[in-house]
Amino acid sequence: MICMYDHMIAAVKIKGEYNGTELRKVPVPDISDDEVLVKVSRASICGTDIHIYKWNEWAADTMGIPIIYGHEFSGYVEKVGDKVKNIKKGDYVSAEGHVWCDDCYQCRTGRRHICPNMKSLGISRNGIFAEYAAIRDKNIWHNDESIKPEIASLQDPLGNAVQTVFAGNVAGKTVLITGAGPIGLMAVSVAKATGAGKIIVTEHANSYRLDIAKRLGADHTLLDNEDIVERVKELTDGNGVDVSLEFSGAMQALRTGLKSLTNGGKMVILGLYSSDIPFSDEDINDIVIRGISVEGITGRLIWDTWYQSNRLLKSGKLKLDELITDRFKFDDFHDGFRAALSGKAGKIIYSFD
Amino acid sequence: MICMYDHMIAAVKIKGEYNGTELRKVPVPDISDDEVLVKVSRASICGTDIHIYKWNEWAADTMGIPIIYGHEFSGYVEKVGDKVKNIKKGDYVSAEGHVWCDDCYQCRTGRRHICPNMKSLGISRNGIFAEYAAIRDKNIWHNDESIKPEIASLQDPLGNAVQTVFAGNVAGKTVLITGAGPIGLMAVSVAKATGAGKIIVTEHANSYRLDIAKRLGADHTLLDNEDIVERVKELTDGNGVDVSLEFSGAMQALRTGLKSLTNGGKMVILGLYSSDIPFSDEDINDIVIRGISVEGITGRLIWDTWYQSNRLLKSGKLKLDELITDRFKFDDFHDGFRAALSGKAGKIIYSFD
Amino acid sequence: MICMYDHMIAAVKIKGEYNGTELRKVPVPDISDDEVLVKVSRASICGTDIHIYKWNEWAADTMGIPIIYGHEFSGYVEKVGDKVKNIKKGDYVSAEGHVWCDDCYQCRTGRRHICPNMKSLGISRNGIFAEYAAIRDKNIWHNDESIKPEIASLQDPLGNAVQTVFAGNVAGKTVLITGAGPIGLMAVSVAKATGAGKIIVTEHANSYRLDIAKRLGADHTLLDNEDIVERVKELTDGNGVDVSLEFSGAMQALRTGLKSLTNGGKMVILGLYSSDIPFSDEDINDIVIRGISVEGITGRLIWDTWYQSNRLLKSGKLKLDELITDRFKFDDFHDGFRAALSGKAGKIIYSFD
Amino acid sequence: MICMYDHMIAAVKIKGEYNGTELRKVPVPDISDDEVLVKVSRASICGTDIHIYKWNEWAADTMGIPIIYGHEFSGYVEKVGDKVKNIKKGDYVSAEGHVWCDDCYQCRTGRRHICPNMKSLGISRNGIFAEYAAIRDKNIWHNDESIKPEIASLQDPLGNAVQTVFAGNVAGKTVLITGAGPIGLMAVSVAKATGAGKIIVTEHANSYRLDIAKRLGADHTLLDNEDIVERVKELTDGNGVDVSLEFSGAMQALRTGLKSLTNGGKMVILGLYSSDIPFSDEDINDIVIRGISVEGITGRLIWDTWYQSNRLLKSGKLKLDELITDRFKFDDFHDGFRAALSGKAGKIIYSFD
Repeated sequence: MICMYDHMIAAVKIKGEYNGTELRKVPVPDISDDEVLVKVSRASICGTDIHIYKWNEWAADTMGIPIIYGHEFSGYVEKVGDKVKNIKKGDYVSAEGHVWCDDCYQCRTGRRHICPNMKSLGISRNGIFAEYAAIRDKNIWHNDESIKPEIASLQDPLGNAVQTVFAGNVAGKTVLITGAGPIGLMAVSVAKATGAGKIIVTEHANSYRLDIAKRLGADHTLLDNEDIVERVKELTDGNGVDVSLEFSGAMQALRTGLKSLTNGGKMVILGLYSSDIPFSDEDINDIVIRGISVEGITGRLIWDTWYQSNRLLKSGKLKLDELITDRFKFDDFHDGFRAALSGKAGKIIYSFD
Repeated sequence: MICMYDHMIAAVKIKGEYNGTELRKVPVPDISDDEVLVKVSRASICGTDIHIYKWNEWAADTMGIPIIYGHEFSGYVEKVGDKVKNIKKGDYVSAEGHVWCDDCYQCRTGRRHICPNMKSLGISRNGIFAEYAAIRDKNIWHNDESIKPEIASLQDPLGNAVQTVFAGNVAGKTVLITGAGPIGLMAVSVAKATGAGKIIVTEHANSYRLDIAKRLGADHTLLDNEDIVERVKELTDGNGVDVSLEFSGAMQALRTGLKSLTNGGKMVILGLYSSDIPFSDEDINDIVIRGISVEGITGRLIWDTWYQSNRLLKSGKLKLDELITDRFKFDDFHDGFRAALSGKAGKIIYSFD
Repeated sequence: MICMYDHMIAAVKIKGEYNGTELRKVPVPDISDDEVLVKVSRASICGTDIHIYKWNEWAADTMGIPIIYGHEFSGYVEKVGDKVKNIKKGDYVSAEGHVWCDDCYQCRTGRRHICPNMKSLGISRNGIFAEYAAIRDKNIWHNDESIKPEIASLQDPLGNAVQTVFAGNVAGKTVLITGAGPIGLMAVSVAKATGAGKIIVTEHANSYRLDIAKRLGADHTLLDNEDIVERVKELTDGNGVDVSLEFSGAMQALRTGLKSLTNGGKMVILGLYSSDIPFSDEDINDIVIRGISVEGITGRLIWDTWYQSNRLLKSGKLKLDELITDRFKFDDFHDGFRAALSGKAGKIIYSFD
Repeated sequence: MICMYDHMIAAVKIKGEYNGTELRKVPVPDISDDEVLVKVSRASICGTDIHIYKWNEWAADTMGIPIIYGHEFSGYVEKVGDKVKNIKKGDYVSAEGHVWCDDCYQCRTGRRHICPNMKSLGISRNGIFAEYAAIRDKNIWHNDESIKPEIASLQDPLGNAVQTVFAGNVAGKTVLITGAGPIGLMAVSVAKATGAGKIIVTEHANSYRLDIAKRLGADHTLLDNEDIVERVKELTDGNGVDVSLEFSGAMQALRTGLKSLTNGGKMVILGLYSSDIPFSDEDINDIVIRGISVEGITGRLIWDTWYQSNRLLKSGKLKLDELITDRFKFDDFHDGFRAALSGKAGKIIYSFD
């Protein structure tokens, strides 16, 4: 096969420091037998990418450099490996960013999303902040033509939201959502679309995001300078909510979510914590005595969550457009991160056209 | 206690024949220690009431006469028995029409809706086609003031629809609904409100009802002179639907629902059958080989379904107004049944003001 | 009705201090319309009774005195209230010790065991360390004649174990049980009887209890001076266990149970904690990242757990006899508690013959 | 690679007629990149093999000839394809006989056992009634050394029984098993091992099999000249059973299983039917009115069922030895089928040593 291209522009993390990223001309990646080469159309910035940009403790502990990062994208297949079936040049695709092993106990029992041998696109292998990316064939998702490229690039965080909300099984239930960042806001839209009876959203001192939450379907929004637990009980006939969905990563919000539950309620957690506010014996006892269930969520069920997300997207009930606050050309990579770090951003989209 | 009233108008089935019903002046019922007297505000006609009106084989086998029938209603508490707690004069209420025993294996394990000793309001005891009705205290549901009386009178059939749709757990799934009578149409609205990804509705030669289905959220409607199974597959990427909900009571629709399922799909049945088209060994084998699940639904989960229905009603997502086609004063009782029997009716509401 | 008896011997907590209990002659309790009077045959000492005996902080905060305590028993109905149905003099019974309200959200939706208005036999109302006890009719369980009275008196803690093990759904799974006190040991027997694939039991420095665990079906027993997490992985092909059941009430055991889980595993907690070892952000993150589920357990599902426990008892698969280490006449009440406090006791049974 | 062998003895169905099978010397199969060559140690005769032997309508419609049939086996890996990972020469293995596609909706959502594109070992590709067999690498299961080869060859039908019993979730429940052929009898053993509270087994006029059922843990056995439904109710306090497991493939047994269920009970069906006794509208209505659930079972969950089966096997609770009635050398292939067809056989094992 003769390639018309051989180099591409990519955002390469080259130094282990804040930013430390350069747009460079690098070779287009080779693909192996079971990989496809995708020409990226749209990419989106994830919270994880911000950790990498900032080079926080987690990033420094987890990753090697140099690396091309980024994992939320949509694009078109440019080339397929020799053993690839069911994917062809020109296909409109996105990808599951988690690269599971298929050999472990979890993968062999329908739980690939929690494979203990997981690799990740843009973290442990080169990602998609680049004109081209090599993706394992098994990880490819064929996008529906009716979903436009910038929305298709959001299926990774949308899938986080969908898995979390679906774990809460919210139809006809009262729901508290703590944390109105992009994924929390997507969860508001998903909960609304799937019949949550009453949706209450809390956020730490950011009424701008609560306004978006209202537009996406929140029935009540609360800033956490209020006594949230008390207010939640007032709004739920004194019972507390059936389901708490935690996206903030703040230990205090986790505790609030638990205390706001009615007896027998369910807490679903996507957030990750770095707080030094500990969880006490009384917090645990509250779970035990009141018959609470807690479930941790990571990634997306492969592929159940993708099917679910797509059906919701195609039904027209999700308002993800509301969450895209800024669009940049990929050449203006650093402007995108500046916007993302401003505290006023929703999702930031890069285009590669 | 001094009563200001002692007689009332009631629709009494007095003869075991078609119609056989007279509006009569009868004594207001006495209530026992654990009952409340309700002044009926709105009543609605159920398919079961039509069986009683027609005095079909089921009615003749099941019921004694004379009886006041009817069981779908809303009203206001007039008087409470001596041992009644938590209910008081003036309360705005409806009631669960199934009178469970509380002593059997099912009642003792959280499954009161399938109590084998069940009695039924308006079938095995006097019902609510009357100005006043005696209701067991345990059966009372307190209505939210935001739900207007005619909608509140529909909670019994709505609960059938909600239990059926919730058994299908439809969020993010493709759904086939067979039978677009009032409960089937309510199910369309409930499925739409709870995130069904694609809703396909079929009906036997009644395109009028399919138009209503469209307004309530159906994505596709099919008359059953088409090859439904083939069309369903086309509409679902060749897979068939994840869930079939059967409301028609036609054996052919049941079979269509099963054949339209994707492997591992779920069939939920509320319809009751009187067909002589049998189910063959091949129909059963199809369930077995393709790993299908089937669940029969009766009544409403007590009180889970009522809470779920109310939250959906209060969220404003259900369009039950669309289903009320005729309103009559209770004095025009026979006009109501004439409308119900016309084949063009949705729900018929009587008012008692 | 003429009573042949009017006084009885009861263990009355009269002083808010260690022991503080006297065997006294007190009036046989009156019963109201919806209560039955039970002549106690066997009573058993619960960990809660030991808290009351010691008058620890929880007891001092929770209870009033004087009170007759104790709630695990079997006996025979002596008298029934005027409104009582389905129970008659001479019936062989035990009772659910949790007195639910039947009016709250939880009670109305099949979750009476977590009623927020719960009262408790022997804590908030007089209990069964007495020759006679008044029990609400709804709380009575009819014992099968094939279950002997001392075993029947153990259905309350057995029900704790059954609810916990059933929440883990252990058939064909690997299971870690932390804490080999009486309920933890019952759980070993229940897990063995319900098909747990491999049962590993840990206990803090009490090899005597681990020997009992072995006799009840544990495949491996570990003292917690070993590196439990490492050993559990070795015993489970490197995966960790599918299910952890926590009975110890030690925060360290809770953490060990979580770390010993395979990704996607389930933690079920019955223990209650008073530790000052906090739960850290890393402990929470481990739950989130590895997709762990946690469920708190209290009491017994009413009456599901009772039916389940009885079927297991009648199948002959539970070896509860092994757990009864001491038997006393009720007159030797204080000897019973001395045995219970010795650290070498399993269950202590009082007889009233 | 130089092979020391090039031909092998295999049972080849060469004619589309009763028996039509010859033991022939044929080439050892070549393996492709993703296959392994297994030297068969033990093979077992399945009911499907008997259909092929008899060449009944199903076989004639489904299969091409010539073919080597058989799919239940254990053996040792002789050679592995170039792309095979995690399997090596000498490994002690069995295999999942269903060859799923990995690309369809079901395979992509954790339901490989109901892949609509399924191929089957010994039906649509050459099977294991031969000294060597080529098996796709993904289908290989590594056997535990503690499980002896003849028991390991039974994991395919054992997996049918395990999936069926686990779908009934039988711990602490009353269970009816209809049909005491080899898989029904395995189900008795699995139900006993996983805590079924009471096991009742019925069989059509074969008291010999009911004796085996008793030894495997049945509490009651009934020949179907009795009024089974009535007897089941007597044995379950008048309630009927919680779960019916149907293995017989007789429509009458299916109906008996349904009628024997308590309200809200669950019917699980593995049997396949060829009866002309139809299922009536009343049979369907009984499912609907009484809130019954029905689930069809095929194959084994891949690989959940295999893990579960192995843990039960290793726990020593399954008595599969009781089910092996005859052992033959593979050279005496036709003697094996004669025994299988005698009506008195359990499982028949061939050895290849």
